Amino acid sequence: TVRNLAMEKVAETVKFPCKYASNGCTMRLLHTEKRIHETNCERRPYACPCPGTSCKWEGPLDDVLNHLLTAHKTITTLGGEDIVFLATDIHLPGAVDWVMMQCCFDHYFMLVLEKQERHEGHQQFFAVVQLIGTEKEANAFRYKLELVGHGRKLTWEAKPRSIHCSISSVICSNDCLIFETAMASHFGDNGNLAINVTIYKTSYY
Amino acid sequence: TVRNLAMEKVAETVKFPCKYASNGCTMRLLHTEKRIHETNCERRPYACPCPGTSCKWEGPLDDVLNHLLTAHKTITTLGGEDIVFLATDIHLPGAVDWVMMQCCFDHYFMLVLEKQERHEGHQQFFAVVQLIGTEKEANAFRYKLELVGHGRKLTWEAKPRSIHCSISSVICSNDCLIFETAMASHFGDNGNLAINVTIYKTSYY
Ligand SMILES: [Zn+2]
Ligand SMILES: [Zn+2]
Ligand SMILES: [Zn+2]
Ligand SMILES: [Zn+2]
Repeated sequence: TVRNLAMEKVAETVKFPCKYASNGCTMRLLHTEKRIHETNCERRPYACPCPGTSCKWEGPLDDVLNHLLTAHKTITTLGGEDIVFLATDIHLPGAVDWVMMQCCFDHYFMLVLEKQERHEGHQQFFAVVQLIGTEKEANAFRYKLELVGHGRKLTWEAKPRSIHCSISSVICSNDCLIFETAMASHFGDNGNLAINVTIYKTSYY
Repeated sequence: TVRNLAMEKVAETVKFPCKYASNGCTMRLLHTEKRIHETNCERRPYACPCPGTSCKWEGPLDDVLNHLLTAHKTITTLGGEDIVFLATDIHLPGAVDWVMMQCCFDHYFMLVLEKQERHEGHQQFFAVVQLIGTEKEANAFRYKLELVGHGRKLTWEAKPRSIHCSISSVICSNDCLIFETAMASHFGDNGNLAINVTIYKTSYY
């Protein structure tokens, strides 16, 4: 055990390069810090942001849009700052995802609605807008999601998250619009749900 | 059994007065309709709208406010159409209620925030505004609840419900702002949560 302690002392002071050094990361880290850094490293590859698929693609940010447009052709893209994201058949049982893209301010945004049983026996909807860009670029924007119907209105406004952050971790941190499946009946119509999505440039906001 | 059938036939056609006839209800009902009507009868007494207490008071609408001001003196009342409902110690464990009153447009409104485990193991907040008045009078108003903080905003707008409808049935029908306890951390500050409450006259809205 004396020897282990000695080894630990060495390990505690030796610094290793980040595994994304070849992507340009210059960080050198203690082995205790290495994993946490790499999970969040700005130079880590981007995973395919398309939820609910088994797509294992990952690559640089510059290739994400091309990947989506070629490998996920069913995703609709709408242009404009103010669009309607229409989710159909919201009563379908089980975990379901609805995805579309919005193009405005020379950027592409992913709009995601997820029905999920985060707590056992209690399904909820989670809706969020993510920028196909870095977390830093995302700081230049805000988005608003709005559900309207039967004299009621539910609104969520926030900064979009970068797709660098997985949709599951965005939902996990509650950084999204969350509403009850039963709540959807106030807003839905024939099993369809229209979400008004508006994107703003922060400086205009 | 022939005799029972005959009795049932009689019961199916005999009409009984509503049990709130002495309060002015003139309805006469088949015994099969009687209970449903009485649960919703406009002439039924008002129960004490104060949630989370064991108060068993009930009486006419005209006496509700007096009851609240004398029997529930700890409830704060603020005047104005646009106020801040400050809930303190929102991290207190278990089911907790926060209540205050808002006075504007010559009416009193009850503001209620409830922390409740509607689904086992999953605590949520429920916030709603109720009019101390009839459901018909409530049609003249709308209210907005707004949570703001850390670059995020969550808003709920709806018609206030009459206190004639119990808070539990309002929550049960999802006719309120619902948010995760974890969501409160985006908006709360030192365990306190400020909810901006605005009441509108429908005609101004
Ligand atoms: Zn790195
Ligand atoms: Zn993909
Ligand atoms: Zn009656
Ligand atoms: Zn009472």
